[in-house]
Amino acid sequence: MRIELENNAKALQKILNPKSLAVVGASNSFMNPATNLMATILSNGYEGEVYPVHPKEDVAIGLKVYRKLTDIPGDVDLAIIVVSNKIVPQILKDCGDNGIKNAVVITAGYREMGDEGKELERDLLKTARENNIRFTGPNCIGIINTHIKLDCSMFYYEGVPGGVGLVSQSGSYITQPLPYFFQRGINISSAISVGNQTDIDIADCLVYFAEDDNTKAVAVYIEGIGNGEKFIEAARYITAKKPVIALYVGGTEVGSRAVNSHTGAIASPDSIINAVFAQTGIIRANTVQELFDFSHAFSVQPLPKGESAAVITNSGGPGVSMADSAVRLGLSIPEFSKGFQKKLREISIHTAQVGNPVDMTMDFDIRKQFIDVTKMIIESGEVDAILFYGVFGGANFDKKFDKLGIIPTEMRAGFSKYLGEIVREFSQILRSSNIPVVTASFTGKEDSSVELMMELGIPVFSTPERASAALAAMAKYAKYRGIF
Amino acid sequence: MRIELENNAKALQKILNPKSLAVVGASNSFMNPATNLMATILSNGYEGEVYPVHPKEDVAIGLKVYRKLTDIPGDVDLAIIVVSNKIVPQILKDCGDNGIKNAVVITAGYREMGDEGKELERDLLKTARENNIRFTGPNCIGIINTHIKLDCSMFYYEGVPGGVGLVSQSGSYITQPLPYFFQRGINISSAISVGNQTDIDIADCLVYFAEDDNTKAVAVYIEGIGNGEKFIEAARYITAKKPVIALYVGGTEVGSRAVNSHTGAIASPDSIINAVFAQTGIIRANTVQELFDFSHAFSVQPLPKGESAAVITNSGGPGVSMADSAVRLGLSIPEFSKGFQKKLREISIHTAQVGNPVDMTMDFDIRKQFIDVTKMIIESGEVDAILFYGVFGGANFDKKFDKLGIIPTEMRAGFSKYLGEIVREFSQILRSSNIPVVTASFTGKEDSSVELMMELGIPVFSTPERASAALAAMAKYAKYRGIF
Repeated sequence: MRIELENNAKALQKILNPKSLAVVGASNSFMNPATNLMATILSNGYEGEVYPVHPKEDVAIGLKVYRKLTDIPGDVDLAIIVVSNKIVPQILKDCGDNGIKNAVVITAGYREMGDEGKELERDLLKTARENNIRFTGPNCIGIINTHIKLDCSMFYYEGVPGGVGLVSQSGSYITQPLPYFFQRGINISSAISVGNQTDIDIADCLVYFAEDDNTKAVAVYIEGIGNGEKFIEAARYITAKKPVIALYVGGTEVGSRAVNSHTGAIASPDSIINAVFAQTGIIRANTVQELFDFSHAFSVQPLPKGESAAVITNSGGPGVSMADSAVRLGLSIPEFSKGFQKKLREISIHTAQVGNPVDMTMDFDIRKQFIDVTKMIIESGEVDAILFYGVFGGANFDKKFDKLGIIPTEMRAGFSKYLGEIVREFSQILRSSNIPVVTASFTGKEDSSVELMMELGIPVFSTPERASAALAAMAKYAKYRGIF
Repeated sequence: MRIELENNAKALQKILNPKSLAVVGASNSFMNPATNLMATILSNGYEGEVYPVHPKEDVAIGLKVYRKLTDIPGDVDLAIIVVSNKIVPQILKDCGDNGIKNAVVITAGYREMGDEGKELERDLLKTARENNIRFTGPNCIGIINTHIKLDCSMFYYEGVPGGVGLVSQSGSYITQPLPYFFQRGINISSAISVGNQTDIDIADCLVYFAEDDNTKAVAVYIEGIGNGEKFIEAARYITAKKPVIALYVGGTEVGSRAVNSHTGAIASPDSIINAVFAQTGIIRANTVQELFDFSHAFSVQPLPKGESAAVITNSGGPGVSMADSAVRLGLSIPEFSKGFQKKLREISIHTAQVGNPVDMTMDFDIRKQFIDVTKMIIESGEVDAILFYGVFGGANFDKKFDKLGIIPTEMRAGFSKYLGEIVREFSQILRSSNIPVVTASFTGKEDSSVELMMELGIPVFSTPERASAALAAMAKYAKYRGIF
């Protein structure tokens, strides 16, 4: 690997794992982005030292403010810079003077603003080099490392530390989806808003994520690829270890125009991007939703060892939707052998279907769907993965029973507990078999069992086809990796 | 129109608008589906008379139980039948004896169960005809008419009366998405689970919805089309007035196999279905998500008068995603005229982009994005529709400020109120211009302004591309209608 990638990934490792940091620009005004950013860091419970730096303030959000970086008594591992672009060079010099080697430059107003900005950006890089400083940005939104409770992205992170690494040319995709992730049980490891990529670029981030044990899958938002050869080298390096899913938006005339005015990126036609992705094993997402769906599923489930799947359901329509969409996306939903169908038939009620999809229909014994059928399918060896649809809990029923004041709360709590136990057993059976499962249900976290499934690393998508699409992406990558 | 369609639509009108109904089979046991169904009817606040009928019980959920339909003293407009398939003929005779002309036959165990079931289904139809009874089902999940608070679908309906009509060959799609609809602000008018379509079929439902003033758009889940000519006639009739969006799942080998064992439907190849849809102006949804997204947007927004749209955003990445996906789906995102760009530039901060997408970037004056830019774009006459992306509210910020105990609650409540006023004004401007708007945000109903937007009939999708896809579907239908 080229030395540049190795060094930059090491620099990123330091940027993302500071034991102490300074927020340059933080005051007591919440109209001030630096203050807002520091509030995010503090509210998320970052345990390292935080030093606000401001030329006029004394206290910011209860912390002593330092007038200059050089006034800070302790070591500072990272400077987060949120000041006017005119002042940034001086701040970098202060970093140099205080031995601070890593920075996140949030400040905007560089190449994305035309010729004058380009000049400022060249100066920025020059000053950083002179002072031995490595940095992400400028014109970025910040970074997140959930495993050390560091979130300097402006948005509060509600989830638990997870396995999805994010890297984006748009800061919005690092901050604004955080509530979306939380609702859907998507947990991230680290997130990097690369901004103008003046020093550290997307390729460097890929190599960093390749080495980061917390990261199991990487989601990338790309507006344009600068150094193609470097990108390809980094992409090949990481996809040999971990899946990378990418959304590219510069392939249309309007996309190209829009990315240029957004980040100053030069877009390439779809055909070139598709060739690069195919060569390097990157899975292309067509939408932001797919980007997050796929990386979520990859981050919590093992890879399938083939393209065939069982559909297990208790509802005919969603089961058909799941099977039909899976096949359209390249998976196979093979009809089970007659012998195995006979076995399934023995434990099913008469309305059930056992050919694949396995539709348990109105069988109130939910244990059959979750445990018995799942176990039998795994043991049959007839498929490589499981697609699972159901109503995972009684939140909707609770509402109607509450209205009528019937069925005691404790009885429903009992059912909820029983379902929880079944979900845990379901998860254990699948984990020990190393067969991937992807599920769908029209209910979300309002059902405690959906929440539990998410906690246990079982992806629960809100519609059947999204589950199929995630599994199809996993099979595609497994094939690239030569797993089958 | 063939007399059959006309008559069946009239019969459906009665089935969906009963002033009194009997639930045949309801007892006090909640393991009994009839009881569960009656609980749904009562909990949803249906204001008509409800008569449980059971051969042994005296009281069910606090209501007097009648031993037979013929024992009921008052008029009964509808019999909902949830008993064993062996008993159904006798119940139909009792209907006849008591002058009950309409029924919903929930009971399963007919053609979907092979030859014996087919025979039972023929008997069912014969007995119904002999007794002048019209019915939906059998093997269905029930019906919903939110406008009279009638929900006999098993699931509790949390939304308000709305404009999306649903008709489905799978009962699951009539019940299980109700929590999904509520979370996303999708409000339905009526829903019909057609089951085996022994008497009333999907085509009849389309004509019913064509005449139903509450219904603005129709979502259909199709496993197979029985009488093609009748379907085409009904489809043409309704699409001349209202949009129909359909999901068809029988087009793959596995889809065909699965639908046959699900509802006994005979599937057709995709090519035939696509030709039928193209001829009749039905918009084909590729997924359940699209089915609901599109019908939602159609039900609350006017049709565009052309294919061009403006993208208004405060976030670069999502704005590019929206524009790029819109163009891929057949919309145009034209660059604004130089003169108009100049006007937009005058009200924007220096980092803003005004070419289209209009990206207001970090402008804290949210009024500009919602009101000023929207108004100017409408007045410019340069586009036919608006795609709008943003962070609609401060729910995430509230979490971080709460953690730190800073920024008083009343200050945030003030912001929330201010944003609410802006959202109302935004809605009014668009309504009076009759230009459609479709929006996206990564936050859902946890933000009160998202909830308000949904209440005001502004669709809020969770990702940018979903908004683009819904608008593209609207433009496609408007073109079919000859609006442009």
